[in-house]
Amino acid sequence: MPGDEIEPWLLTPGPLTTSVTVKQAMLRDWGSRDRRFIAINREVRDRLVDLAHGRGSHVAVPVQGSGTFAVEAMIGTLVPRDGKVLVLVNGAYGKRIARICAYARRAHPVYETSEDTPPDPAEVARRLAADPAITHVAAVHCETSSGILNPIAEIAAATAAAGRRLLIDAMSAFGALPLDARSLPFDAVAASANKCLEGVPGFGFVIAREQALAAAAGTAPALSLDLHDQWRGLEANGQWRFTPPTHVIAAFHQALIEHEAEGGVAGRGARYRENCRILVEGMAALGFEPLLPPALQAPIIVTFRMPADPRFRFEAFYDGLSRKGYVIYPGKLTVADSFRIGCIGRLGPPEMRGALAAIRGTLAEMGVESGAPRRREAA
Amino acid sequence: MPGDEIEPWLLTPGPLTTSVTVKQAMLRDWGSRDRRFIAINREVRDRLVDLAHGRGSHVAVPVQGSGTFAVEAMIGTLVPRDGKVLVLVNGAYGKRIARICAYARRAHPVYETSEDTPPDPAEVARRLAADPAITHVAAVHCETSSGILNPIAEIAAATAAAGRRLLIDAMSAFGALPLDARSLPFDAVAASANKCLEGVPGFGFVIAREQALAAAAGTAPALSLDLHDQWRGLEANGQWRFTPPTHVIAAFHQALIEHEAEGGVAGRGARYRENCRILVEGMAALGFEPLLPPALQAPIIVTFRMPADPRFRFEAFYDGLSRKGYVIYPGKLTVADSFRIGCIGRLGPPEMRGALAAIRGTLAEMGVESGAPRRREAA
Repeated sequence: MPGDEIEPWLLTPGPLTTSVTVKQAMLRDWGSRDRRFIAINREVRDRLVDLAHGRGSHVAVPVQGSGTFAVEAMIGTLVPRDGKVLVLVNGAYGKRIARICAYARRAHPVYETSEDTPPDPAEVARRLAADPAITHVAAVHCETSSGILNPIAEIAAATAAAGRRLLIDAMSAFGALPLDARSLPFDAVAASANKCLEGVPGFGFVIAREQALAAAAGTAPALSLDLHDQWRGLEANGQWRFTPPTHVIAAFHQALIEHEAEGGVAGRGARYRENCRILVEGMAALGFEPLLPPALQAPIIVTFRMPADPRFRFEAFYDGLSRKGYVIYPGKLTVADSFRIGCIGRLGPPEMRGALAAIRGTLAEMGVESGAPRRREAA
Repeated sequence: MPGDEIEPWLLTPGPLTTSVTVKQAMLRDWGSRDRRFIAINREVRDRLVDLAHGRGSHVAVPVQGSGTFAVEAMIGTLVPRDGKVLVLVNGAYGKRIARICAYARRAHPVYETSEDTPPDPAEVARRLAADPAITHVAAVHCETSSGILNPIAEIAAATAAAGRRLLIDAMSAFGALPLDARSLPFDAVAASANKCLEGVPGFGFVIAREQALAAAAGTAPALSLDLHDQWRGLEANGQWRFTPPTHVIAAFHQALIEHEAEGGVAGRGARYRENCRILVEGMAALGFEPLLPPALQAPIIVTFRMPADPRFRFEAFYDGLSRKGYVIYPGKLTVADSFRIGCIGRLGPPEMRGALAAIRGTLAEMGVESGAPRRREAA
């Protein structure tokens, strides 16, 4: 079935387009006890800690499955049974953390703001002051539902000032937006092989403060998601407790080498910012309006409001772009009818300009003259 | 790092050697909402149900992660909070099921036999009769710790006769040993992409009786491992709830095509039995003695007793074989000092004979004249 038509560029939040060399790293079967495979894992874990500037204070622990598995392992292991998590929600991924807490039966008051509104760090501070039982704050760095950048440094400062622990879902930001453990206090951050680090999907990881993880034995509600036990196993002999996704890990190792070659977080972030700039400017020229103002827009994925023109139908738009070799993403918002276009993965300015040309062509096919949305009502 | 020396044959219980064409299926990035990717998933799920002859009664639900994740999703979702599981243990994987039950806080009496002794179906029947609170029996089809074949048909009959539900860990057997839902009643069987179906590691799956799964809403102790919710999501729109391991799934799709081309379960099982026969006979000629008598030996992995010759050191033996391009597996038993050699993966008679030649050569290098174990004491 593969190869029967063009392979499209994936302008999505993942699975995303990866380099040929990353995929070629999967053309070999590794024994999971192979010394060189164990060395690959060691190097991957060390590189992840270094990306967060956590050497000496933090450890990286991979978790089989999707990024959500890593988030669930982080919450279920690091929040004690009698803990209480203030969950900051402004989209689907914040809501998912609340759902994870409900499964794990952890008390979890929610501070929710609209999908286009970041949480207010002062309000976080007030809620922490008002409820001394809260032990942890859980926050999403870039909420992929909208593409909004949440003020993670200010949230971290408010949480630390109140003597509480911060758990971050940095799924769609890690590797492209800085997160420095030396200046931004957190107990753990969860992310995935398959976002800004441009590996293929198959595992996530948690970078945790070693002291917090060491204290978290016997907490997790599931063996597979027991981050403490996974860490102890890796430390004991360098092996995963249960069969690791060997090919995916080899691909990720290659992806980290390519990330470093691009200039690390700064270089990767610069390419994505340029992708995002080209996209937003090009879409503006076609009349499209992003949901978010520039100050709140992370260079990861951009939400555009649905055009007012009645000839615009999203399914036809999606299919037209797909036929031209570009895959975009439907919206996931309640505040606005919308769609999303990603800026991440092995894409650069030529692909972003190609996508814009495909969008122009598809609009012409549909007879849509402008992407301008319905005029918004005054607040 | 790959390519700097020969890629060895993996005579292990997995990750194992896969075909080049299975690995090449990973050289493409799939969007997880791509219609053809959704069709691949549909076909994979249908083929899995057909392998168990469960069409019309059972459904297949993949679970991200290793096979253990699938076992844990099966136990945590299908055993209600007030359920009670009789766990049959004769090795590490049965013990792991008991550990999963402890995490999920499910009552779980254990019926344990020695690692070289299968559970007695009559004893299962007695224990079920003696404790009406037991709702489920959990059994391992082939216990990979020793390679023993457990009497799954007789266990299924005893469980059904007592009106209880059977959950099977068929990790290392599914696809090579028959498991027919029409004649062997079970509520669910868990297995992995990376065993006898010869895919690469990255997900497991559960084939569950649809009525049992439909009744299991709200039971699972973790969102990621909620098999009911995963099934509902797949049925709703063909998509996984959380990012699927797209490349691994494409490889598995190819692996299933190759499995069918080999003659399905019968053809795959025949090759493994021939591998196993060549191995056991060749090892016997060198003096090595398998742990298990032929009637209990599954054609999956063979446990050999450690030779008595003091010049035999397992680490040197392992390294010598590895240098010659064959990876074997350490033992995992308490009853006997041992090592294991697998018969599964993309290996045939030439590779098994090659492994035997490498073993002969390595023994000669070590100055070991015979693989004969210490004389066993009379029982």
